[in-house]
Amino acid sequence: MTFVPPPIVAVDRGLEVELRGKLDGKAKPPGSLGRIEDLAVRLGLIDNSLSPRAATTALVVFAGDHGLTEEGVSSYPSSVTVAMVGLFLAGRSSVSAFAKATGVSVKVVDAGVAAALPAHPGLIDAKIRLGARNAAREPALTPDEAALALTRGIEIAGRALETADVLAIGEMGIGNSSAAALVMHRLAPAPLEACVGLGTGHDEAGLARKTAAIARAAARSDASEPFAVLAEFGGCEIAMMAGAVLGAAARRRPVLVDGFIATAAALAAVRLVPEALDYCIFAHGSAEKGHGAMLAALGVEPLLDLGLRLGEGTGAALAAPLLAAAANLLTEVADLADVLG
Amino acid sequence: MTFVPPPIVAVDRGLEVELRGKLDGKAKPPGSLGRIEDLAVRLGLIDNSLSPRAATTALVVFAGDHGLTEEGVSSYPSSVTVAMVGLFLAGRSSVSAFAKATGVSVKVVDAGVAAALPAHPGLIDAKIRLGARNAAREPALTPDEAALALTRGIEIAGRALETADVLAIGEMGIGNSSAAALVMHRLAPAPLEACVGLGTGHDEAGLARKTAAIARAAARSDASEPFAVLAEFGGCEIAMMAGAVLGAAARRRPVLVDGFIATAAALAAVRLVPEALDYCIFAHGSAEKGHGAMLAALGVEPLLDLGLRLGEGTGAALAAPLLAAAANLLTEVADLADVLG
Repeated sequence: MTFVPPPIVAVDRGLEVELRGKLDGKAKPPGSLGRIEDLAVRLGLIDNSLSPRAATTALVVFAGDHGLTEEGVSSYPSSVTVAMVGLFLAGRSSVSAFAKATGVSVKVVDAGVAAALPAHPGLIDAKIRLGARNAAREPALTPDEAALALTRGIEIAGRALETADVLAIGEMGIGNSSAAALVMHRLAPAPLEACVGLGTGHDEAGLARKTAAIARAAARSDASEPFAVLAEFGGCEIAMMAGAVLGAAARRRPVLVDGFIATAAALAAVRLVPEALDYCIFAHGSAEKGHGAMLAALGVEPLLDLGLRLGEGTGAALAAPLLAAAANLLTEVADLADVLG
Repeated sequence: MTFVPPPIVAVDRGLEVELRGKLDGKAKPPGSLGRIEDLAVRLGLIDNSLSPRAATTALVVFAGDHGLTEEGVSSYPSSVTVAMVGLFLAGRSSVSAFAKATGVSVKVVDAGVAAALPAHPGLIDAKIRLGARNAAREPALTPDEAALALTRGIEIAGRALETADVLAIGEMGIGNSSAAALVMHRLAPAPLEACVGLGTGHDEAGLARKTAAIARAAARSDASEPFAVLAEFGGCEIAMMAGAVLGAAARRRPVLVDGFIATAAALAAVRLVPEALDYCIFAHGSAEKGHGAMLAALGVEPLLDLGLRLGEGTGAALAAPLLAAAANLLTEVADLADVLG
């Protein structure tokens, strides 16, 4: 199986003048809504419309495990991934709490959790394997597995966007900040030490263990092409999220990207198809060390800066209302001409 | 009529240890939700509860005019205030569009619009007078008028909080960034040049005119006590918003403060009753010049930084879901102990 990315067209930037003109004609001083106006323009370009839609957001949380945890890269065991999937499905996780507050729907994808999961209406079974292999010793995925993960990500994005205006991506996977650091290292690209942070929880000794394991993985393969990097290092949920970004972009829909790990997946998608970047909106700047540099490598600025470093899609859930507000600015606000009569 | 502020008790900071402990016991790494955890603690302290409520926000937009516009402090005429009130009530303003996106209810208060307004179910008639007087020539309000504005603000907050967990305050009033600059100047306190910015729209010539008019007002009165400053310079809607802050704080409810002008009102409330600050949450850092220094004078940091400089409560409407999310963190998320079994 080889992976052929879907066709993705760059947005037509010629529409920006019209979008800015429409905003400047609204009943408010020009430019007075700052970055929300910029966001409205982005949404208009993505929709190729002066009246973009962003009222509803479907958040998909991609869960997967990593053999790299055998090297002690995380202070949590892989069994926590299973437990957290249970909490997502029960609506009792942090992202569930946030999504409830912001009216975002949540689906969970088993991209590669290292245990069989019972069926649940909120769970999409797209399991590639029972956890990615230990990237410090061998490729995390075979090329076939990586291609399957990408393809399933595209399909999942398509289905989510049948009932929502915006796709948001988040993740859960013990060890995946290490996988994301390796993806960033090769695709930003950036020195390894700029890519490795504390993850969701580590002391200094844990960080040294994590850094050493990541260095072993990096030494094992010199992959630098995006597909190969996803297979060698990314693992199931990162590859599948990269596919979801491509799938949303191919459908010309906005994809709201959560934190460090989701951004690594978006980076891989953008390196596969550069035009995909036009469709990505970055929800927040994570407190995870490498996130700022990864966003800079993509040339983008996130919407929120709240010191989050959890993942799960928590930042994306919080940012979703900003997209709805920005779209409403174009579609709901009166023109100045109407007011002045 | 003299104004006696309502009794406001400081929050019991002793509860913070318990709130942090509850958050640290949740199924997530301690501290991994950054400023949302800090916000959850704030809400818990305000509610004096480990399970605070912040699911619903009532945004009240206080509208008023300013005789200072006779001096050319704004590039818009006072008639725009009336037109904008009409847009708020029709749901076709920027803040209407944002509030729709975030599930916030909006009421408009006629605090002192310089025209008779027709009755409307969404309009609260609390008019003090047909626009504040020209503060460059005389006090904007008499002491009786200022006391009445504060008292009505307290009452309005109380009624809004009968059906909502959180009060948000925003405003509309041509010329009120000049009034707010004078309030900031005397109560931050800060040099006048640090307080005067472009407002919602000015060129350099307009800014020079605005600065000169504000300097004339400042030279007319050396008021520095908060009540006197509200009367001399603040005008109807700023004094009434200050009352609303006191009213929310007296009821131990959170008040979500919008941008530059709403913050000036909160500053006055806090100078009247310092404990009121415990109940204020600042929605966003405005692009208006003096806002950063005013927030610093209060010792607070805003939640969002989106380059907004419109007012109307737009930033407060965008920040409201963050409060709901933070409260949900305490009330909806499973404990780690439950997950680990």
